[in-house]
Amino acid sequence: MLIFNPDSDPALASQLVRLLDAQAGILEQRRFPDGESYLRVHSDCADQDCVILCNLFHPDERTLRLLFLADTLRDCGARSVGLVTPYLAYMRQDKRFQPGECVSSRPFARLLSGAFDYLVTVDPHLHRYDSLDEIYSIPSRVVQAAPLIAQWIQSHIPNPLLIGPDSESEQWVSHVAELADAPFQVLQKERRGDYDVSVSLPDLGSAAERTPVLVDDIISSGRTMLETIKHLQAAGLPRAVAIGVHGIFAGEAYSQLTEVADVVTTACIPHLSNQIDIAAPIAAAVQQLLTVTARS
Amino acid sequence: MLIFNPDSDPALASQLVRLLDAQAGILEQRRFPDGESYLRVHSDCADQDCVILCNLFHPDERTLRLLFLADTLRDCGARSVGLVTPYLAYMRQDKRFQPGECVSSRPFARLLSGAFDYLVTVDPHLHRYDSLDEIYSIPSRVVQAAPLIAQWIQSHIPNPLLIGPDSESEQWVSHVAELADAPFQVLQKERRGDYDVSVSLPDLGSAAERTPVLVDDIISSGRTMLETIKHLQAAGLPRAVAIGVHGIFAGEAYSQLTEVADVVTTACIPHLSNQIDIAAPIAAAVQQLLTVTARS
Repeated sequence: MLIFNPDSDPALASQLVRLLDAQAGILEQRRFPDGESYLRVHSDCADQDCVILCNLFHPDERTLRLLFLADTLRDCGARSVGLVTPYLAYMRQDKRFQPGECVSSRPFARLLSGAFDYLVTVDPHLHRYDSLDEIYSIPSRVVQAAPLIAQWIQSHIPNPLLIGPDSESEQWVSHVAELADAPFQVLQKERRGDYDVSVSLPDLGSAAERTPVLVDDIISSGRTMLETIKHLQAAGLPRAVAIGVHGIFAGEAYSQLTEVADVVTTACIPHLSNQIDIAAPIAAAVQQLLTVTARS
Repeated sequence: MLIFNPDSDPALASQLVRLLDAQAGILEQRRFPDGESYLRVHSDCADQDCVILCNLFHPDERTLRLLFLADTLRDCGARSVGLVTPYLAYMRQDKRFQPGECVSSRPFARLLSGAFDYLVTVDPHLHRYDSLDEIYSIPSRVVQAAPLIAQWIQSHIPNPLLIGPDSESEQWVSHVAELADAPFQVLQKERRGDYDVSVSLPDLGSAAERTPVLVDDIISSGRTMLETIKHLQAAGLPRAVAIGVHGIFAGEAYSQLTEVADVVTTACIPHLSNQIDIAAPIAAAVQQLLTVTARS
């Protein structure tokens, strides 16, 4: 097996090479003056199972080269070409909210489905779609971050209280709390008028002396987390821990969050906040999919 | 008819709107924090012939959004979706020169052919392919820049001498010279040893008093033109005019060239050197293709 890593994520790539007993694929990449990509595969791919690890964070500048690489591996005789993308882009535009909007999740899924034999990702943003199979026509495996986060909480936070910022987050937070064998509370919003909303912890007494732990799938602007932490501080709780599966950190989000909380992410998007390892379940998913696709 | 212009080339877009008696399509575009494109078409496309003007200079960052836009126009009921790309990218990697190289012209052609009904471009780099039809499965029209360049020379350079930098350029230069009713000469290389090459004008006498005019399809590093101009200067000829169909101008190419020559390009790639208009033959090609595709 060969693992290619066109958009450098050397930490995860080397873990996958080790866990899958694979070899690192060797690529030559450069740009022509007009911005075109030059791409050459230096590894012998004939009859090899090939995996491309390509994080689809900032997808527009990466996707064309990714499709070219998949095409080249097939041209060079690869037996299979799989995609590992811990952050799967274009999952949020899953409905035409306004007339004329691009429902980008669909053409993006068609492009990847046409280029790869299978797909592995971590907690994609499944909101209106129940499963990737609704838009992806290739087999896929979704690695769940909840058990990895729960395990990290158990081994790093002695006395945690999981916090959901709103009722929408309850299902996810309660699931992580159960796996971590920890209590959880969801913030309550009380609306007294158009501009008079109070937010409170339902049981402040049992929260004292515990480390509040906020968990979210994507930290983008960080606004929800910042608001929530402000309320916890006002209630006199200790410094919070903010955990995200995918740390996008738009603009000043990271520096703002680290002022008020310890920020921790999974290694889905490479970032200095990465503390939660995702390589083992990704490697297991690749192995499962290779078995499935080899059978068919 | 609606003309969309996602990667701003307002000058050419407004010319095409006028020449094709079309309307400017209205687009809303922005980026999400993770780099995804948001795209919304504000024009009513139902049963409309739609044309996307998208220059594929720096293709990697533009292609995904271009494919999304084509998909959205179809979703919104467009009767046809055509592509006008004055600079067609990924034409140069037309052969596997080394093992493992991506022959990018082919997967790129497949992507565009899957998204559009037809394609109009200006002088694509056809080297090993005789025609776009070898790799593009949709109808296409190639606008020839030679007559436009010849016309520009006739109306701007009183006493021109067209210069070909080497024997490879002879066919192209002689064609422009014929159309411009002007003389031409091709530089002769005489090799006396590995490091002893002399370059000379075959008929220096008849070149005196004439303005040397260099013509090339792509000005990228500008190296060939700079070398040629150096030789013309050494031979005592007047300041040269350097004309390119596609002005890519890598690095310092433009400032280096303007030091020794007047630099002129067609409007294929928007640049301050643009002086040669390409809108009329592009509009005519679109009209031809609409007739062809409507018939089939």
